[in-house]
Amino acid sequence: MKSENNKGVKIIPLGGLEQIGMNITAFEYEDSIIVVDCGLSFPDDEMLGIDLVIPDVTYLKENASKVKGLVITHGHEDHIGAIPYVLKELNIPIYATKLTMGIIEHKLKEHNLMRTTKTKVVKYGQSINLGCFRIEFIRVNHSIADAAALAIYTPAGVIVHTGDFKIDYTPVFGEVTDLQRFAELGKKGVLALMTDSTNVERPGFTMSERTVGKTIDGLFAENKENRIIVATFASNVDRVQQIINSAVKYGRKVVIEGRSMVNIITTAQELGYISIPENTLIDIEQIKNYTNDQIVLITTGSQGETMAALSRMAASVHKKISIVPGDTVIFSSHPIPGNEKAVSKVINELVRKGANVVFQDTHVSGHACQEEIKLIYALTKPMYAIPVHGEYRHLKTHAKLAMDMGVEKDNVLILSSGEVLELSKESAKIVGNVPCQGILVDGLGVGDVGNIVLRDRQHLSQNGLLIVVVTLEKYSNQLIAGPDIVSRGFVYVRESETLMDDAKMVVQDALDECLRKNITDWGRIKTAIKDSLGEFLWKRTKRNPMILPIITEV
Amino acid sequence: MKSENNKGVKIIPLGGLEQIGMNITAFEYEDSIIVVDCGLSFPDDEMLGIDLVIPDVTYLKENASKVKGLVITHGHEDHIGAIPYVLKELNIPIYATKLTMGIIEHKLKEHNLMRTTKTKVVKYGQSINLGCFRIEFIRVNHSIADAAALAIYTPAGVIVHTGDFKIDYTPVFGEVTDLQRFAELGKKGVLALMTDSTNVERPGFTMSERTVGKTIDGLFAENKENRIIVATFASNVDRVQQIINSAVKYGRKVVIEGRSMVNIITTAQELGYISIPENTLIDIEQIKNYTNDQIVLITTGSQGETMAALSRMAASVHKKISIVPGDTVIFSSHPIPGNEKAVSKVINELVRKGANVVFQDTHVSGHACQEEIKLIYALTKPMYAIPVHGEYRHLKTHAKLAMDMGVEKDNVLILSSGEVLELSKESAKIVGNVPCQGILVDGLGVGDVGNIVLRDRQHLSQNGLLIVVVTLEKYSNQLIAGPDIVSRGFVYVRESETLMDDAKMVVQDALDECLRKNITDWGRIKTAIKDSLGEFLWKRTKRNPMILPIITEV
Repeated sequence: MKSENNKGVKIIPLGGLEQIGMNITAFEYEDSIIVVDCGLSFPDDEMLGIDLVIPDVTYLKENASKVKGLVITHGHEDHIGAIPYVLKELNIPIYATKLTMGIIEHKLKEHNLMRTTKTKVVKYGQSINLGCFRIEFIRVNHSIADAAALAIYTPAGVIVHTGDFKIDYTPVFGEVTDLQRFAELGKKGVLALMTDSTNVERPGFTMSERTVGKTIDGLFAENKENRIIVATFASNVDRVQQIINSAVKYGRKVVIEGRSMVNIITTAQELGYISIPENTLIDIEQIKNYTNDQIVLITTGSQGETMAALSRMAASVHKKISIVPGDTVIFSSHPIPGNEKAVSKVINELVRKGANVVFQDTHVSGHACQEEIKLIYALTKPMYAIPVHGEYRHLKTHAKLAMDMGVEKDNVLILSSGEVLELSKESAKIVGNVPCQGILVDGLGVGDVGNIVLRDRQHLSQNGLLIVVVTLEKYSNQLIAGPDIVSRGFVYVRESETLMDDAKMVVQDALDECLRKNITDWGRIKTAIKDSLGEFLWKRTKRNPMILPIITEV
Repeated sequence: MKSENNKGVKIIPLGGLEQIGMNITAFEYEDSIIVVDCGLSFPDDEMLGIDLVIPDVTYLKENASKVKGLVITHGHEDHIGAIPYVLKELNIPIYATKLTMGIIEHKLKEHNLMRTTKTKVVKYGQSINLGCFRIEFIRVNHSIADAAALAIYTPAGVIVHTGDFKIDYTPVFGEVTDLQRFAELGKKGVLALMTDSTNVERPGFTMSERTVGKTIDGLFAENKENRIIVATFASNVDRVQQIINSAVKYGRKVVIEGRSMVNIITTAQELGYISIPENTLIDIEQIKNYTNDQIVLITTGSQGETMAALSRMAASVHKKISIVPGDTVIFSSHPIPGNEKAVSKVINELVRKGANVVFQDTHVSGHACQEEIKLIYALTKPMYAIPVHGEYRHLKTHAKLAMDMGVEKDNVLILSSGEVLELSKESAKIVGNVPCQGILVDGLGVGDVGNIVLRDRQHLSQNGLLIVVVTLEKYSNQLIAGPDIVSRGFVYVRESETLMDDAKMVVQDALDECLRKNITDWGRIKTAIKDSLGEFLWKRTKRNPMILPIITEV
């Protein structure tokens, strides 16, 4: 049974399926490429001084004429954050739902890319044609409104990509995930399902966003005398809506604080995704006109980020707000793995200032748990399963779940980033590899910090450095100044004078030895200094600072 | 009603009650001081390059003649880790239960302190007299065997210090926490209760250690074909006992791997705290004589520590063990806050190698939850409550619990480290402060890394450095060599040649300006270089590296 269609569609994860963040996947068929999502990720602990990590789009640049468009599932940073960087390399039209596009356009304006970028808002149920692909947007629930799954119609079959999703039967805004459409697609035949693995280790169902609203409303009822401060994710518009609902109910004014929160809520309000009664929002400057029991602050900083508004309040460096005894601070969030200690530090500081900190039952996840993921499999009955969005452990657990749901073992495919999978009803095979290493952004520099620089930062951070300055006479190589030793980040020098004096002697001896042996090559002299001083310092201190010999010749 | 006894006993937390780790508290009455516990803590994320933090015992040194003894509650690092360091400053006899002392003596041997240190093993129920204090050891359950609470009889009244504890009605080794003795003490009158706040945010009871044994036994039954690797805390002897019980039941040989695990299990075996049937333990070298289904490895590394055995296996750098597909790896532990990402990294690496990783229901805490803490209050009915062992948020939550249990609000005392509390039936007041800042240990250096060094390491780690080398002629101040710029951890220089060339020009201009203005003071020349170059680099890169001008004169 040969046909045109047994040629496969290529699926290429460019940003690392495994890394939370940096979601970006190319779909290619003949001379058409579409890109789904374009996220950034935040640096690992080892990436010292790095601000962001963005995907490598070399492959897209090399095939620029084929690239028909960028299709976005929802407005979280790990799905849209790299758009401005990628657009500077490659001009592609962007397709997204209304709120998602509102958030993207805010970024484009900041980067001065509005005029040069074509954008098109797509509604749920609507399709767009990009080259040989048709892409249909399907409603899903998530922790940000207007999230979409995609049905990608390719000549090789239909691929369903859920994006990040959950199933909320009682959502705060809009309707439940379009289960009927998933069922229809499944009835017609789905080639592959690509779906969210974040919560695949958790049994059961993710709770409805509304349950958080109930808890928060209860906290308003219990804390009628106190100021209420709620920290949550800037983009969780439904959460903010529920807090505002309670504020209105209990006659409180609302202050939105933190730049990203203000940006997104403004966009959501303009586009009709949040409804705020008149005279509810007040400016932070107006707080002084109200008593504490008349105020709710909704703020960023729920992850303990040093520069976020709540952290600044906790550390007493916020210009407008001071925490006072009795303040009720609600963390409407869970710490993202890695942020636990930072969050705890902020909680300790708040408690120390007399705040009452609440963090139980005040958050639900935006991602599907096991039973929801199973439901999507039961509705779509895909031939292939390609777990996405999770660490490797999650993808692997997801793979087992897919098999439990009837996908054949060989048809469950865990991709590594950069792998080119060619998929058709007849076969699934890796046919190549493309560049996919994340590109480090440090300040204005994109890609100018690499492994050597990071290794040096790591070394400096652990042990500091010693600079050995030596001035030699031209030709004779006689020492005319130095050796002088300057150290930073090594020891508190005033307490270690003898150590430094001894270190100088060691360098002096090494230099004498070089002179005696008629060694004039600077490389060899530097090595001699490094080796002898390194050995001396290790013996004396069991430390291993960076040693930088600097030779000047006059 | 005046009497001798209305003079108070002083309680001085030296290591920071708030910090998890570094438990050390002095109790003083007239010319007697006793010290309870002597722990170390591990560095915060900001303490770059630091290995350990130990307590400042200046106050004890200044009052050395009064210090009668060091009384230890149990053998965890946060209670005994600083003993060798403190003994080098101050020779004090040590009192502890048998297993605790076994672990301490191992440390003393390593530090060559055995001959000079007096140690005495104390049994549960036994008392020791130290100056005007009598200290009774009381049996409690914890995640290490032989843990003790202390009843400290002082002229001002009895202080009950539980140490770290839980209530395990069905312990693996020994008996349940001596609730009767707590009740007796309470009947007679307890001045103050100092007890564990670690789990005070958790409702209910901590599960029995035996529940973990059941889960592990079930995993042995399910994984008869595979090698089993269990990672747990080195000091949890009862956990190891249960794993060994299952190993024996299913006919497997046991390998203990990881230095700290081997040390503690050896000590526990010598002292009779673990029972291992003959021919059960085998050396790691003998593994090759057995098939995978005949082996259990018990290993360190449950916290994702880079150098621990399991992490080395996961990263394929362990010399003796390679993970193979089918290996069942059980994490019999929870990540300690801050270690979540490191643990997840190890899990990802294990899963990638085909291991089946299990971490659900495979651990219970060693610390009391709310109902257990309440029980101790109900039994002892203390006049004062002094919450210990927890972050500030935990101490504060504990304070509320104590009030719920009937302790008067003014009698609940949250101490800060270094505060001297004087306590009697009549009053509780802070009467002074003693030095208490942690001392940083880096390699062999104790206290030679302070805030300046740490700030430099932080700066270097984020932005790297530029060294500007300039050679000036004596008197004339004419430039005779340089400026040369050397950078480390700043940018990948080969890609930034023009940036570095421009930077040189900037320095040259700054030097010319100094010369023109007849500025000869090196300090001012250096400042001019730093300022101009700093401004230039910030403009061009939005980065702020450390700039080190080095001037040589010939």
